[in-house]
Amino acid sequence: MGSAGTPKFEVGVLGATGMVGQQFIVQLARHPWFRVTWLGASQRSEGHKYRDLTWRLPTPMPEDVADLTVEHSVPGHAPRLVFSALDASVAGEIEQAFAEAGHIVVSNARNHRMDPLVPLLVPEINADHLKLVVAQQQAKGWTGAIVTNPNCSTVFLSIALAALRQFNPTAVSVTTLQAVSGAGYPGVASLDILGNVVPFISGEEEKLESEPRKILGTLRNGQVESHPMVVSAQTTRVAVANGHTEMIGVRFEKTPAQEDVLRAFGSFCGRPQQHRLPTAPPKPIIYLTESNRPQPKLDVEREGGMAVFIGRLRPCPLLDYKFVALGHNTVRGAAGAAVLNAELMAAEGML
Amino acid sequence: MGSAGTPKFEVGVLGATGMVGQQFIVQLARHPWFRVTWLGASQRSEGHKYRDLTWRLPTPMPEDVADLTVEHSVPGHAPRLVFSALDASVAGEIEQAFAEAGHIVVSNARNHRMDPLVPLLVPEINADHLKLVVAQQQAKGWTGAIVTNPNCSTVFLSIALAALRQFNPTAVSVTTLQAVSGAGYPGVASLDILGNVVPFISGEEEKLESEPRKILGTLRNGQVESHPMVVSAQTTRVAVANGHTEMIGVRFEKTPAQEDVLRAFGSFCGRPQQHRLPTAPPKPIIYLTESNRPQPKLDVEREGGMAVFIGRLRPCPLLDYKFVALGHNTVRGAAGAAVLNAELMAAEGML
Amino acid sequence: MGSAGTPKFEVGVLGATGMVGQQFIVQLARHPWFRVTWLGASQRSEGHKYRDLTWRLPTPMPEDVADLTVEHSVPGHAPRLVFSALDASVAGEIEQAFAEAGHIVVSNARNHRMDPLVPLLVPEINADHLKLVVAQQQAKGWTGAIVTNPNCSTVFLSIALAALRQFNPTAVSVTTLQAVSGAGYPGVASLDILGNVVPFISGEEEKLESEPRKILGTLRNGQVESHPMVVSAQTTRVAVANGHTEMIGVRFEKTPAQEDVLRAFGSFCGRPQQHRLPTAPPKPIIYLTESNRPQPKLDVEREGGMAVFIGRLRPCPLLDYKFVALGHNTVRGAAGAAVLNAELMAAEGML
Amino acid sequence: MGSAGTPKFEVGVLGATGMVGQQFIVQLARHPWFRVTWLGASQRSEGHKYRDLTWRLPTPMPEDVADLTVEHSVPGHAPRLVFSALDASVAGEIEQAFAEAGHIVVSNARNHRMDPLVPLLVPEINADHLKLVVAQQQAKGWTGAIVTNPNCSTVFLSIALAALRQFNPTAVSVTTLQAVSGAGYPGVASLDILGNVVPFISGEEEKLESEPRKILGTLRNGQVESHPMVVSAQTTRVAVANGHTEMIGVRFEKTPAQEDVLRAFGSFCGRPQQHRLPTAPPKPIIYLTESNRPQPKLDVEREGGMAVFIGRLRPCPLLDYKFVALGHNTVRGAAGAAVLNAELMAAEGML
Repeated sequence: MGSAGTPKFEVGVLGATGMVGQQFIVQLARHPWFRVTWLGASQRSEGHKYRDLTWRLPTPMPEDVADLTVEHSVPGHAPRLVFSALDASVAGEIEQAFAEAGHIVVSNARNHRMDPLVPLLVPEINADHLKLVVAQQQAKGWTGAIVTNPNCSTVFLSIALAALRQFNPTAVSVTTLQAVSGAGYPGVASLDILGNVVPFISGEEEKLESEPRKILGTLRNGQVESHPMVVSAQTTRVAVANGHTEMIGVRFEKTPAQEDVLRAFGSFCGRPQQHRLPTAPPKPIIYLTESNRPQPKLDVEREGGMAVFIGRLRPCPLLDYKFVALGHNTVRGAAGAAVLNAELMAAEGML
Repeated sequence: MGSAGTPKFEVGVLGATGMVGQQFIVQLARHPWFRVTWLGASQRSEGHKYRDLTWRLPTPMPEDVADLTVEHSVPGHAPRLVFSALDASVAGEIEQAFAEAGHIVVSNARNHRMDPLVPLLVPEINADHLKLVVAQQQAKGWTGAIVTNPNCSTVFLSIALAALRQFNPTAVSVTTLQAVSGAGYPGVASLDILGNVVPFISGEEEKLESEPRKILGTLRNGQVESHPMVVSAQTTRVAVANGHTEMIGVRFEKTPAQEDVLRAFGSFCGRPQQHRLPTAPPKPIIYLTESNRPQPKLDVEREGGMAVFIGRLRPCPLLDYKFVALGHNTVRGAAGAAVLNAELMAAEGML
Repeated sequence: MGSAGTPKFEVGVLGATGMVGQQFIVQLARHPWFRVTWLGASQRSEGHKYRDLTWRLPTPMPEDVADLTVEHSVPGHAPRLVFSALDASVAGEIEQAFAEAGHIVVSNARNHRMDPLVPLLVPEINADHLKLVVAQQQAKGWTGAIVTNPNCSTVFLSIALAALRQFNPTAVSVTTLQAVSGAGYPGVASLDILGNVVPFISGEEEKLESEPRKILGTLRNGQVESHPMVVSAQTTRVAVANGHTEMIGVRFEKTPAQEDVLRAFGSFCGRPQQHRLPTAPPKPIIYLTESNRPQPKLDVEREGGMAVFIGRLRPCPLLDYKFVALGHNTVRGAAGAAVLNAELMAAEGML
Repeated sequence: MGSAGTPKFEVGVLGATGMVGQQFIVQLARHPWFRVTWLGASQRSEGHKYRDLTWRLPTPMPEDVADLTVEHSVPGHAPRLVFSALDASVAGEIEQAFAEAGHIVVSNARNHRMDPLVPLLVPEINADHLKLVVAQQQAKGWTGAIVTNPNCSTVFLSIALAALRQFNPTAVSVTTLQAVSGAGYPGVASLDILGNVVPFISGEEEKLESEPRKILGTLRNGQVESHPMVVSAQTTRVAVANGHTEMIGVRFEKTPAQEDVLRAFGSFCGRPQQHRLPTAPPKPIIYLTESNRPQPKLDVEREGGMAVFIGRLRPCPLLDYKFVALGHNTVRGAAGAAVLNAELMAAEGML
């Protein structure tokens, strides 16, 4: 599996013209296992060559997709594996239609994340949740399936907490400082964010308070029991292009020693590292010892944007420990997360 | 007291050439009670006309100080009341020398804030702590005195908590997003903050975790007993010019109803409002009902920068309530705070 | 005319809900002559109280307009004088309909600016161009009229050139660094401008190369003969909220002495200063002697945003002199310009 | 010369601890010909391991220099080839001392650039100016030599003009929008540039008006005759991290057709491309056809930061043509420029 020369899986991208869709295209360029052969978008873009549509990323458009003709987002010509970069306003129904029609939909959209039959997957944390797929197919009568990745800010928090799961976290406080790229394009108006902080992101706190509990939940009798920890989130938007910073506090059932927490961050790894998945970072968590790190500008592009950077671990007078986490919202928090999910499914023979 | 035409108090400004010193100058321009007649700075500036030194604020230099000659920061020619905008590296000794020499030093520096005999004053909250001055003078053998205002981010948190003091706060979590003007000039390098977040401000979390407990403390037998609440702080620097945003969570001894919390914010006021002090905002707290406020860009300059803006009050799954607070760090958080302190002392006959 | 207590002119605002419309509302609040009594917008806003629509400016919404009910932008109930903040996509026809129906339309839109019968007015420069109004009414058969102000970046360049008109400018080179507020709301996406420069603003260079020639043109036989100078413009968008900076070079028929140029900037004034119009700056041009000024952050809010700030006058190896100009694009470059136009018309008995 | 496996030249870096010095280190990491074996800095850093000094770049410190011990900047132990990243306040004398002591000093500092005996080298433009080295050695009695690269903003303008040299440019107008990284660290204070434009950079306009004329000058009788074109420059600082944007206008002796100008940009290349020097971009100029390009955020990191990006070629009403150029100020405008200079010298047998 996965050696150079292995035939690639053909894949499609739903919502290929938006910001997240373009990030999928970049993430999949020169991928050793996947080759993009089909692009779906709204009817407005149907029939256009991809190269003729507006490209918004600094990385130039990969040549191998430039000549694909964009199709309407309906099943039919798409390959079995499709990545969904659809907007939440339409993702619910379109993804369902593709799953019904036999496609494996690896989705970044929020619509099906909290469906009890849909894995909300972070491969380092809950690879076993993929077992939900069989139950999903039986219950829904689908030959395809839907697998989701979490909200961007959830990914980084969940990975940090997963590393500490052995100490039984019971309460979590998180305040985020989120980049504008998380809001898509055109997204945040420059007049709203230049020299400003917007202390509100619609729906974000709710996701941060519920998704990590499902991700760290336990699969028992074909169902995910949510982790019992309580999460309180406050989310803000700041004038940063890429990289969500999270100021986190955690209380545990029994306070671990600080060096044990550090060791847990340092040694954390999971199925992607065992499988050496192409997109997997060698270490999911990089702990930085400098007093003022991680920082979006200095750290977010490291490790291909796939690691979570943590720093400033110190005791918390209110909970047990506090620390800072940083992740790349459009890579590990979106397209890269979905690609890693698909790689895991491939490595485990589910494609 | 304070009607137009009343003879003014002559005042001096220690550290008059730095950013905070210039903010004092602006804050005191056209003040109905105080008139700046003396400027102290380091020996480098000694003997220069104030107009010949670099002025860094958008507000033009007030004409009435422009022709003053800057003196060295030693007692002698200064009037009885001096404001201290000194840097912490030198404030400790210089302020002490002035107090010894009979001056009332109203200081923005951190050096003497936690001295048990020095009031850490926010006039709306702990005007009674001014009684420490007599004990201070006796203990130190000074004819003058030192009165301090808190660290900028402490002021806003403390005012929010003071409004809720009746509900007995027991635990507080705060994450700040602080403006670059809080670091003085040149302060934060543009390469460090453009498109970035720096998740560390030296010494800031310690101040936020201790100063509010003294400010909300109880004066008993000539001593301030710290408030028993626990405060946990995380502080960050963001690309904002003016205005510290604070994401706050609070637990109370007994959870109040949300409308009671709202009412407490709305009705909060104190001695400055009763005295109608010149710099006092009509209401110390302005609660904003929009879902995405307060914001530095939209709110920080309102009310002359002297009010605290609060919004987004909502239940907290971890503590009892969470909300957002915003204040102007160089006005209510620095020069304006000290001027209000001096006004209170004037109104209460202590000058 | 214009003393306090004089009955006010009732005025309407077309396009009252957009960014420019809101700037008109702010500019007209507490105006000694004009009182906003009518608001027009698109059908989507029709029937709503103005206070219920989204307000985007830091200055709070003036109370006296908050209870007005927004009407559709058709003549009928509007007062004789209407300010137009309409978008160029609709301004052409709507303004014409109002003029036909007897309204004096004082417009900020670009549509009619270059119509030979429509004054393109900067009151300090070409107050005499108002004489076109009679010809306009005769030719079009209107009882009303349309009077326009120039594009924001044109205003500042034109005022600088008008001050030097006596030296017969023959060639002008200008590169602008324009603020995002010039693009309205939502306008420029934050992803496009954070940490970036966009070296293109659609249609802007064309306006800068033609409008100043009409403004400085000579009225002869009922027609404006364009000034013969050649203007070459390059326009860019930068991450500034308010304030367009212009790097200007000028060649004259005969090179004046540098002190004569300085004197011309300093002594420049016009009809608004003679009439002491309420919105007129005491001096239309403020020359700053510091080596690194003017700067948007330090200077743009001075003089109520109505003056042009100039600095760095120095010889140019290619043309004769170069200098920097700065103006407030949403005040002197838009709403404030139109209000000044209307004040001039009032003062000269044309309303 | 230069095939993999060729023994490398050992090189030193003078001023190795500053921003430019760190950029040299990054630029030289994994270089096929050069290997950094010596680091010089001020006495403050002397004796420290390089890894123990503050590293400010997002790219992590290359491992192979981390264990070098920093020496004082005096000749002695340094290898024959040294790159100079020294600050202009000390570069003059130190570079001279190294040249005297037999070192080839390839310098980014401005001090010796306009010395008639020192090549001001842009390898694509004036490789023949290297012949000055012999005259330099004879005249100064040095066994070493000094070779310089131009000021960052000069490089991009000069490359654009060199491509059009065949059309005999006679007059050039340039306005720059320069990144903060051009000012080193800490450099520009964040309070000065956040949401602002500073229309002045000390000494920058003078360099832009003189250096390109030397670079495009003709070597005749052992002397460089300056190109007779006139250059007028206006320079500004904007809130961009990396990338200087230049708005350029050019007049030619005889106006070429627009397609000939385009073709000249597209076909321009020089000695580095002929030698296939390791750091040379395949094409020194990339012309972008989109209407709003080049942009720092989208283009500056392309081609390893070594190409100049040009766009928006259009006729100019004042001169003949105008266009926009962009270059990476710390790569092609500084360390990368010097490395390319040394590569050229290596390829031509001068080391």
